[in-house]
Amino acid sequence: MPDELAGLADLDLGRTARRGYPEAVYCAGKTPGQVAAIAAAVRDRPDIVTLFTRAEPAHAAAVRDELPDAFHDPDAALLAWPPEPPGPAGGTVVVVAAGTSDLPVAREALLTARYLGRRTELVVDVGVAGLHRILGRLDVLRRARAIVVAAGMDGALPSVVAGLVAVPVVALPTSVGYGAAFGGLAPLLTMLNACAPGVAVVNIDNGYGAGHLAAQIAAPAPGPEA
Amino acid sequence: MPDELAGLADLDLGRTARRGYPEAVYCAGKTPGQVAAIAAAVRDRPDIVTLFTRAEPAHAAAVRDELPDAFHDPDAALLAWPPEPPGPAGGTVVVVAAGTSDLPVAREALLTARYLGRRTELVVDVGVAGLHRILGRLDVLRRARAIVVAAGMDGALPSVVAGLVAVPVVALPTSVGYGAAFGGLAPLLTMLNACAPGVAVVNIDNGYGAGHLAAQIAAPAPGPEA
Amino acid sequence: MPDELAGLADLDLGRTARRGYPEAVYCAGKTPGQVAAIAAAVRDRPDIVTLFTRAEPAHAAAVRDELPDAFHDPDAALLAWPPEPPGPAGGTVVVVAAGTSDLPVAREALLTARYLGRRTELVVDVGVAGLHRILGRLDVLRRARAIVVAAGMDGALPSVVAGLVAVPVVALPTSVGYGAAFGGLAPLLTMLNACAPGVAVVNIDNGYGAGHLAAQIAAPAPGPEA
Amino acid sequence: MPDELAGLADLDLGRTARRGYPEAVYCAGKTPGQVAAIAAAVRDRPDIVTLFTRAEPAHAAAVRDELPDAFHDPDAALLAWPPEPPGPAGGTVVVVAAGTSDLPVAREALLTARYLGRRTELVVDVGVAGLHRILGRLDVLRRARAIVVAAGMDGALPSVVAGLVAVPVVALPTSVGYGAAFGGLAPLLTMLNACAPGVAVVNIDNGYGAGHLAAQIAAPAPGPEA
Amino acid sequence: MPDELAGLADLDLGRTARRGYPEAVYCAGKTPGQVAAIAAAVRDRPDIVTLFTRAEPAHAAAVRDELPDAFHDPDAALLAWPPEPPGPAGGTVVVVAAGTSDLPVAREALLTARYLGRRTELVVDVGVAGLHRILGRLDVLRRARAIVVAAGMDGALPSVVAGLVAVPVVALPTSVGYGAAFGGLAPLLTMLNACAPGVAVVNIDNGYGAGHLAAQIAAPAPGPEA
Amino acid sequence: MPDELAGLADLDLGRTARRGYPEAVYCAGKTPGQVAAIAAAVRDRPDIVTLFTRAEPAHAAAVRDELPDAFHDPDAALLAWPPEPPGPAGGTVVVVAAGTSDLPVAREALLTARYLGRRTELVVDVGVAGLHRILGRLDVLRRARAIVVAAGMDGALPSVVAGLVAVPVVALPTSVGYGAAFGGLAPLLTMLNACAPGVAVVNIDNGYGAGHLAAQIAAPAPGPEA
Amino acid sequence: MPDELAGLADLDLGRTARRGYPEAVYCAGKTPGQVAAIAAAVRDRPDIVTLFTRAEPAHAAAVRDELPDAFHDPDAALLAWPPEPPGPAGGTVVVVAAGTSDLPVAREALLTARYLGRRTELVVDVGVAGLHRILGRLDVLRRARAIVVAAGMDGALPSVVAGLVAVPVVALPTSVGYGAAFGGLAPLLTMLNACAPGVAVVNIDNGYGAGHLAAQIAAPAPGPEA
Amino acid sequence: MPDELAGLADLDLGRTARRGYPEAVYCAGKTPGQVAAIAAAVRDRPDIVTLFTRAEPAHAAAVRDELPDAFHDPDAALLAWPPEPPGPAGGTVVVVAAGTSDLPVAREALLTARYLGRRTELVVDVGVAGLHRILGRLDVLRRARAIVVAAGMDGALPSVVAGLVAVPVVALPTSVGYGAAFGGLAPLLTMLNACAPGVAVVNIDNGYGAGHLAAQIAAPAPGPEA
Repeated sequence: MPDELAGLADLDLGRTARRGYPEAVYCAGKTPGQVAAIAAAVRDRPDIVTLFTRAEPAHAAAVRDELPDAFHDPDAALLAWPPEPPGPAGGTVVVVAAGTSDLPVAREALLTARYLGRRTELVVDVGVAGLHRILGRLDVLRRARAIVVAAGMDGALPSVVAGLVAVPVVALPTSVGYGAAFGGLAPLLTMLNACAPGVAVVNIDNGYGAGHLAAQIAAPAPGPEA
Repeated sequence: MPDELAGLADLDLGRTARRGYPEAVYCAGKTPGQVAAIAAAVRDRPDIVTLFTRAEPAHAAAVRDELPDAFHDPDAALLAWPPEPPGPAGGTVVVVAAGTSDLPVAREALLTARYLGRRTELVVDVGVAGLHRILGRLDVLRRARAIVVAAGMDGALPSVVAGLVAVPVVALPTSVGYGAAFGGLAPLLTMLNACAPGVAVVNIDNGYGAGHLAAQIAAPAPGPEA
Repeated sequence: MPDELAGLADLDLGRTARRGYPEAVYCAGKTPGQVAAIAAAVRDRPDIVTLFTRAEPAHAAAVRDELPDAFHDPDAALLAWPPEPPGPAGGTVVVVAAGTSDLPVAREALLTARYLGRRTELVVDVGVAGLHRILGRLDVLRRARAIVVAAGMDGALPSVVAGLVAVPVVALPTSVGYGAAFGGLAPLLTMLNACAPGVAVVNIDNGYGAGHLAAQIAAPAPGPEA
Repeated sequence: MPDELAGLADLDLGRTARRGYPEAVYCAGKTPGQVAAIAAAVRDRPDIVTLFTRAEPAHAAAVRDELPDAFHDPDAALLAWPPEPPGPAGGTVVVVAAGTSDLPVAREALLTARYLGRRTELVVDVGVAGLHRILGRLDVLRRARAIVVAAGMDGALPSVVAGLVAVPVVALPTSVGYGAAFGGLAPLLTMLNACAPGVAVVNIDNGYGAGHLAAQIAAPAPGPEA
Repeated sequence: MPDELAGLADLDLGRTARRGYPEAVYCAGKTPGQVAAIAAAVRDRPDIVTLFTRAEPAHAAAVRDELPDAFHDPDAALLAWPPEPPGPAGGTVVVVAAGTSDLPVAREALLTARYLGRRTELVVDVGVAGLHRILGRLDVLRRARAIVVAAGMDGALPSVVAGLVAVPVVALPTSVGYGAAFGGLAPLLTMLNACAPGVAVVNIDNGYGAGHLAAQIAAPAPGPEA
Repeated sequence: MPDELAGLADLDLGRTARRGYPEAVYCAGKTPGQVAAIAAAVRDRPDIVTLFTRAEPAHAAAVRDELPDAFHDPDAALLAWPPEPPGPAGGTVVVVAAGTSDLPVAREALLTARYLGRRTELVVDVGVAGLHRILGRLDVLRRARAIVVAAGMDGALPSVVAGLVAVPVVALPTSVGYGAAFGGLAPLLTMLNACAPGVAVVNIDNGYGAGHLAAQIAAPAPGPEA
Repeated sequence: MPDELAGLADLDLGRTARRGYPEAVYCAGKTPGQVAAIAAAVRDRPDIVTLFTRAEPAHAAAVRDELPDAFHDPDAALLAWPPEPPGPAGGTVVVVAAGTSDLPVAREALLTARYLGRRTELVVDVGVAGLHRILGRLDVLRRARAIVVAAGMDGALPSVVAGLVAVPVVALPTSVGYGAAFGGLAPLLTMLNACAPGVAVVNIDNGYGAGHLAAQIAAPAPGPEA
Repeated sequence: MPDELAGLADLDLGRTARRGYPEAVYCAGKTPGQVAAIAAAVRDRPDIVTLFTRAEPAHAAAVRDELPDAFHDPDAALLAWPPEPPGPAGGTVVVVAAGTSDLPVAREALLTARYLGRRTELVVDVGVAGLHRILGRLDVLRRARAIVVAAGMDGALPSVVAGLVAVPVVALPTSVGYGAAFGGLAPLLTMLNACAPGVAVVNIDNGYGAGHLAAQIAAPAPGPEA
């Protein structure tokens, strides 16, 4: 390594430690053996939270072999270790699922925010076809410092929610829907075109990304570095 | 023409007369001269309403040369002759424009429905970013037998309206919006994926088609043929 | 909930009761257990029709465990309870399937319209490659107050039918076809671009939506609210 | 040039002469000066027909400067020299334009077929929204050895025509239509998915290609080479 | 049925008989039972060739139960009955497969053309990456009255072949290829944009359509109707 | 308006006042006359900041006629009135433009954030092709509470920045680039797929949306409602 | 074969021998039997390297039956025979995998380059979310004559690498990622729009193509033919 | 700037000087004034070649005001200063334009390669529709160390060329073509799916990128850094 870059090699470690954000292991496309090796490697670092996302049952078993007390939510396909989330700090993250079919992705977002150290609340089945449902939960929405809204099909809910609150809305498109939803493309475009300002869009079915972003938005007063 | 089809040639004329629906001349892609020729040809048929849609100023001038008293709405790029719409029959068609930029297309829909013989009402600037606006017009919406909702950007308004009323909503996507609206593709997909049932989608910026469909839905008790 | 919205919470219930429209449970993406719980919950409400759509065999079994006499059409992947559709009112809904492969989706549309209280008729195998077939059924088409046309591949049938009748045509694209049908995208675009006015497009393979819309169009004289 | 390929260099000339097919100069993207130079170069070869396609007025003027008696159809944006088409041989090519807006492209196809030596006939304004119009022209269609069908919007006409005749139909999508025609993509997909066999699709607005293909299909009994 | 259309109902039967073209049963999306019923229905009509395309093993078994001597090519997923193709008439159809992976679709085209009564020849593994291969088969190509070229990946072969012969080339895109072939979209677009005239494009993997079209092009001198 | 919704009508006004967020008038698609009328209407409300976005010169002139002292940045196509932004509160918003061509959109974001009451800083010409440029500005980036990164072409810069800081990055794709950028689609997809967490994507060229979102993220400690 | 082309037929063989490049057998879409036949055919030509790519276990077993000592890398789905790669010549090819999930494709590239006779080195897990990782490997990157960079998701790494070195970067998009990666489309577009010059893009997941291209770039001083 | 990155700030300058590669100024989206300022800034650095790409006439005039002797090729929209390209080194770059309409982009590639210090040759009008044309230029192609092939429409030429030579082919798709070329998307996909290995794809109409990549491939023996 040339001298000019020598100072960079340990930058990452320093930053992770300072931020207290978890490591995330994306299990899709990895073998259970590879995941197990990573799990074994973090066993000595209980000071850093490690998340295993997109964990199929075989991945989960591999993690549990190495970290028997790891937290596991099969619906969200997520594991976390150490199992206890950090004590909450910063503002509250509210996660909204437009329909029941959006729940797995919404739970991934909620758990991610919780393991990044935020207080979380869940609101379910409040799609725009029955406005009274989301309007009936305004009290919860207005307690949030950041809101994640998971929706498939028309993906219209984030626009509506962003018009009702002053905080940022993280829009999380899901692949739920009939043919012309095209695997989540339709709600993704809806959200990018939200007519209300304050909508932050993430990738289709990426609950981890949504939860992480919301947790950053709701982070406690950042120090000089971040 | 083979004998087997001899009876078909005049079918169209018969049907148009029976239905009382207007002829529509799509001016885009036609020369003013071609449009003028058509205008001259219908001068002898005041019994049939003729609409000229997508009429640029040169088209409009050509029509007015032949039919000086023709009705002309430059914003909607539409002319009609005879200028007086037929006396209203059937239910009311309410046309909703999410934003001011959706007005030209919304007016094309409204005028089309009116020249097909429906009572019409217009509601403007009621996008979902401020729900109180559309909720404040529920009384108008609930007087309708059919509702046209024109919207660009996220195209979320038809879903919301369809959840508030029992009649069909004709969803009319417009090409209004930032880059990722892709010329109306985004609201088109949103509307096709509406999570509320009762949404009938038409082509992007096709106000004529939306107004025609709404007028058919709100038509008076159909006779034996239709 | 803030006072300003207190009145909204029971809006939905009121509206459903007034309209007599069924509840629909979209089973795709739900576990059989979740579907069973919903089935159990509606057992006490025989006054409201409940439809279970996109019901895989396991979903169907779960429903039948709770509602043993529920109606079940496996081809349409639909269950209904109470099993008897309401006595018919309003106009007739004719459902047309261009080819045999479009039948499952067409049946979903037909049954939905029937459970919304419409008289229904089915016409099958009348694709545009043999025009005499659809022309030979003009008598049936002209009895309809609304027509659903399900078609894959070129999706050309709705244009042709809309040119033959005066009532609205609900165009229902299906995912049937060779590679360049792109899962229903080709017929969807065809239908959105129908050169005949009066075509209302719904989502790909969304027989429920098509049937619901057609039933609304053919609804009996709406009262003051709808 | 290696010896192994020495024999190839004059292959093209030989083949063109044998087939008697014209040279075609695609003017789009060329300067008038470049087009003029080509026109000058073919002045000595009246034995070969040369077509200038997609010729803007400036291109046309440049050609006429060099070849004053060249045939010019401004609507079709096509010039031909020598001005007289070859005496007709082979079967008849019928060119059908669904609507008036499809005429320029349809004329390009018709003229191309004529300058390749075919008898041609034109049929206009026979879209599927009024079936009696195309059915009323069955006698003309059935005289053809090949049929070109130009259509925009839903592009449904080729499917219908192919179901009525036994000869190949060259489907020519045009860029005519509302927003969701996406510049001709919609009719292109419709035609590729035609439910009637016997449909040969060419590029959007490519009248030259359609006319050329139809002329080849309708060519007189091919000799041993072709 | 209205009187005006009474003459149409038997048009199809008449035309099929006159043309001698086979009936085709598209098995995809049909149950084996449905296919068996069709097979049983044609048992009494040995005067008409019936093709069963896209026949999975279960479909094939169902056909063979009813028509034990039916011809079956499992690779092409095609059955034909009566098993003997009609005696050849008209010109020769040459079918070219760019690579070995294109063979199943190419065979479907070849068998279709054969059962429509054409002489057929097959050329395999002549992709453009090694031009000497296709150039080495020019003698076969130039015997054809119509050529089908099946190719995936870049789909470049039809352009090259069309530049070498005077007869029409039916371009048949296949879904063979790496990720950015997008299920055949890439070769489909290549073929639609062929820089050589004379290329007729059909749907992705639609060997039946390609063979049918080629057989129509190579048909013997058509009679007065077609 | 039904009683149940009576409380909603003034919700918007209340919320806007409480939040202190500006009104935004999207000028694209509005006539200068319409924009002037709006400008006149806000002249009496200096307590609320009004932004005019996407203002062509004619729009700008119309605004200046009514509000002569309005602030105007022609490059950003933005006007603001009253001309003085509110005194800064909350965290700093840093706006990064990958290249000079991204500057107009970046400035729109920066000015929006400033008129929402944030301190802002601008960083320009730090594309990933020369990493030392962005690495050389780490000190500025780490002073931010939210960072907007505008980039066209490959859109890679937000991923890189998000990996260097702990605060959210608002990714703003621009339509700058060669053909396969497809009007901003390429950087939009890149940003949605950012491999670093903490990236919030907005619409193509939507500087207003990006600046608004960043200002919300960097807002001072929100009160109980927001 | 016409005389004019007689010299071409053996061109391929000559060229392959001169270049010493391997034959590649793309197993996808071939039966194990077909692959075995090819394997048997090359047994007598140990002078030419043969690669079997995209080899499923059944393909691999078929090859090993015929060529028991063939080299097999199951992760890369590749076999080679003779098993020993040729002695290295030319410059070094460095293969970089952004993440662990990109490894199978990266290994296919690396092995291909090795069997074309290049020295190879592998660099793993150096995504742009942690820049210090790739910056820490600059010494390896700068030893290369050509670099392959495999990346999914945002596909941003090739832009960054191309900005750090002077040699060409072969950008290899992979299908790794969340929904809006659309099977590799997102990184493909990113790479085509790389803001650093010197990026050569290949097909999605096409490790063979990437390795082959890199080996050609790093080839030793080419002789007069190539 | 943190200490850890202090060494990076001058990395770019160092590298540029070592490589002798030109600076490139992409004029599209810049004002003439901005371009003039850049031109003035490089006036003192005749040791570094500066290219101005995508230069409209106003950009060119601005450059010539500051650098009167700058080289200017209006067709390629490119200027270079100092006007003399560096003395050639490394291998020859051959640039092939499939058709005359591809010439502007091809010239941009050729000039870029020349100003990076390569010998260049141009081959024009050798599309695959007449194979003898490209086969007749094999001698030129085989003198190259790298070949750029610019093609629109079907984009098939790079596949053919790559099958004829042993050196890498840089495939440069152009936006030339009929509707379904979709602005260059069709040839882009063709090239990415080239069935011959050794094809390196760049962005649509990006002659600069193609010429730069080819020049890197054909660079003289790289030193230890690159």
